[in-house]
Amino acid sequence: MAEDSGALPLKENFSEWYNEILWRAEIMDVRYPVKGLYVWYPHGFSLRRSTYNILRELLDRDHEETLFPLLIPENEFMKEAEHIKGFEEEVYWVTHGGTTKLDIKLALRPTSETAIYPMYALWLRSHADLPIKLYQIVNTFRYETKHTRPLIRLREITSFKEAHTVHATWDDAKNQVEDAIALYREFYDRICVPIIFSKRPEWDKFPGADYTMAADAIMPDGKTLQVGTVHHLGDNFSKTFDLKYEDEKGEQKLAFQTCYGISERCIAALLSVHGDDKGLVLPPEIAPLQIIIVPIIMKKNAEEILNAAKLLETEIKSAGMRVKTDSRDLRPGAKYYHWEMRGVPLRIEIGPRDIQNGVIMAVNRFGQKTSIKREEAISGIKEQLESFKKDMKFKASSKAKEQIRIVDSLKGAKEAAETGVAVLQWCGSKKCADEIEQKLDVSVLGSEIRSEYIEEKEDTCIICGKPSKPALVARSY
Amino acid sequence: MAEDSGALPLKENFSEWYNEILWRAEIMDVRYPVKGLYVWYPHGFSLRRSTYNILRELLDRDHEETLFPLLIPENEFMKEAEHIKGFEEEVYWVTHGGTTKLDIKLALRPTSETAIYPMYALWLRSHADLPIKLYQIVNTFRYETKHTRPLIRLREITSFKEAHTVHATWDDAKNQVEDAIALYREFYDRICVPIIFSKRPEWDKFPGADYTMAADAIMPDGKTLQVGTVHHLGDNFSKTFDLKYEDEKGEQKLAFQTCYGISERCIAALLSVHGDDKGLVLPPEIAPLQIIIVPIIMKKNAEEILNAAKLLETEIKSAGMRVKTDSRDLRPGAKYYHWEMRGVPLRIEIGPRDIQNGVIMAVNRFGQKTSIKREEAISGIKEQLESFKKDMKFKASSKAKEQIRIVDSLKGAKEAAETGVAVLQWCGSKKCADEIEQKLDVSVLGSEIRSEYIEEKEDTCIICGKPSKPALVARSY
Repeated sequence: MAEDSGALPLKENFSEWYNEILWRAEIMDVRYPVKGLYVWYPHGFSLRRSTYNILRELLDRDHEETLFPLLIPENEFMKEAEHIKGFEEEVYWVTHGGTTKLDIKLALRPTSETAIYPMYALWLRSHADLPIKLYQIVNTFRYETKHTRPLIRLREITSFKEAHTVHATWDDAKNQVEDAIALYREFYDRICVPIIFSKRPEWDKFPGADYTMAADAIMPDGKTLQVGTVHHLGDNFSKTFDLKYEDEKGEQKLAFQTCYGISERCIAALLSVHGDDKGLVLPPEIAPLQIIIVPIIMKKNAEEILNAAKLLETEIKSAGMRVKTDSRDLRPGAKYYHWEMRGVPLRIEIGPRDIQNGVIMAVNRFGQKTSIKREEAISGIKEQLESFKKDMKFKASSKAKEQIRIVDSLKGAKEAAETGVAVLQWCGSKKCADEIEQKLDVSVLGSEIRSEYIEEKEDTCIICGKPSKPALVARSY
Repeated sequence: MAEDSGALPLKENFSEWYNEILWRAEIMDVRYPVKGLYVWYPHGFSLRRSTYNILRELLDRDHEETLFPLLIPENEFMKEAEHIKGFEEEVYWVTHGGTTKLDIKLALRPTSETAIYPMYALWLRSHADLPIKLYQIVNTFRYETKHTRPLIRLREITSFKEAHTVHATWDDAKNQVEDAIALYREFYDRICVPIIFSKRPEWDKFPGADYTMAADAIMPDGKTLQVGTVHHLGDNFSKTFDLKYEDEKGEQKLAFQTCYGISERCIAALLSVHGDDKGLVLPPEIAPLQIIIVPIIMKKNAEEILNAAKLLETEIKSAGMRVKTDSRDLRPGAKYYHWEMRGVPLRIEIGPRDIQNGVIMAVNRFGQKTSIKREEAISGIKEQLESFKKDMKFKASSKAKEQIRIVDSLKGAKEAAETGVAVLQWCGSKKCADEIEQKLDVSVLGSEIRSEYIEEKEDTCIICGKPSKPALVARSY
């Protein structure tokens, strides 16, 4: 549905590149007539489906999927004071049904705590019911007044994958936070996107949480994108919603909770981290199409070559891979351009000489060519896809390493934040964070960093000289 | 989360049975504090997931999945006059974002024509783009003022599976209507629910359609439930949204459209048609749990029996089936009750004597017992599940046949409509339909019936004596 005309801007002009690739690679159409709402093209939706299937697979190990309503009555929504404060400017309100004014206004969930926890209070009876670990994949809404951007800052988050757990003790909930971090790390590893977890400063935590751990990906322009959050809710919501259980001794106890979620920003990070000047680059596991066969047709033996392509397609399909033959009446170059834009990991070219020599030519999305014996096509293609995935991972982590710099001066931090993340020593105080943020025009993302690239070493604060730990500092989306 | 106390009402008291089974079998919790909105328990959600996967599989053959926004701006929504009239009393309106009044009110989609077709108009250029066949699975909203009922009459339809197609000619669209009917028949066949398609009368068609074909299932109380609709939209929406293509001769032509959808009513029909006095009865293909193993434990050889059960569980799991061992410290009878309620198709009992004799005892959800040799466990279990599915299908279609009666008098129709559907001769006029409806307190559902049980035979109208065809008449939900 998109047209193959004009050129994709260079990726070094990231913002333009991002806007253009979304429609050129048929991910989203941004022309829907409401600000902040977008339409998924089938190609984008297919990519999303396979990406979310990975997350579902991981969650299904020890969570159960469920579904709560979108509409939250005003009185429930208004129960948790901190929580409301965090969301009151952002909530969409339904006020009318047909031409009738509703008795009670209904909020479109910005997140589902206040829809879920009153039900949890009905369900939870005894310690034997714990832990409860449920998740749902739902649309959520935020009336964003800032500049909206597809997949990144939305008014309808069409797929918030939110988990909500209940535990007997604060420590059990803390352990669940760690489990969730491990789960999200595994997810991002599967889609080859490097992330860094850190603990958000007090003033940046989720409204109503004891503390928030968040995952950041580093975008090509060096700005960070928050792509997942894990919240320890303590017993804050339990108190509000009277979420209690009977312990072994028959006493009523308040439960402790966590919640964690990932939005479609995971897709934004996936597209941005891997894409290049030619278009998308997709990990084979989630690419809607893994292999495109391009028959190199000369006039005299068109039929023979098309048949050879179709035969190969059938074989590859039987082996469980997603493949298609592009037999359109176009120059091979136009076909290469088309499928590179859409991020197909592997292209197979079959021409008259290849048939003669009993080979096929495999070209991966990085442009590396390998000749594969025709009779070893399936195993050869599998190998190519496997090594392509490794290369993607290596490239992405090398780039992330480059973008993270450990600095010991404000000047060094300023420089580092121009192309990525600065790691500097910070004492944890709001005062010093404010000074860093104002002087460098950055955000202090967090401390207690979880990254294989960053050592958790004590030192003295870059501002006040008091004892300190490493903190992440960057410009962020 | 539900409790195994008290008894399920008999299914002959269908309305009570239905309300109770939803929570007893852990399908839905109806205690959410907004009328017409419900919460899916994990067991219910799992059932829903496997049911929808079947529909997805069928649609994916020649449709692509996509996603459009929930919120439709008032000006787009108001474009199609017939369409608005059909929905104006039922639409939820978002009027505020945070504390700000919105410039343009936003409708929560009651159905997505007005969200999708303006985008189709941007996408469609040439005859080569046709046909377009997309679908989405989304939540839709209706401000129902009638009595709401879980899965049947909802304010949030949490999973409307709606397809929208575009074609070059009226006849192409008509053929697509027939394809959609075939697709839905296949879907309902897979979940063992008999349905009857018919053409809705003019005054009952979808607002804006040329005509509507609808599927009805017959519920245990004899009332019909509309469980799917297929609409030929003609060029009505094309005119409104300027949906045109360039034909082979370079001329601009209006496109023709269809749309069709199934809501969670398919789950309501599934539960109601098959369930019995003991609880749910589920087709193996979609049962969250296909096999429950109940070890019959005596004190002295508890460990041996538990080990035997666990070993069998592992074998069955490796064979790709969904199985669990219930090793809770409860009487076997309590376990039987528990799993029968939740509709598990097959129970395997293993006791000391079975181990001695080298057998396992399989009991299907109808209570039929079969002894299977231990070494043939996997093939034996597969056979049992297969024949259980056949029995389910047979029972359901026998019941449906009983519930359909061909009648030639108003008196006969009145009787038939007490327990199911009356098939009578009707000329097609509104006047005669009104008379039938008023005299019998029923609805004239439709004519041009598609059912293996009903012959499309011409005769004379039961009211006016003019030439006529068979029509479906029933009380309906």
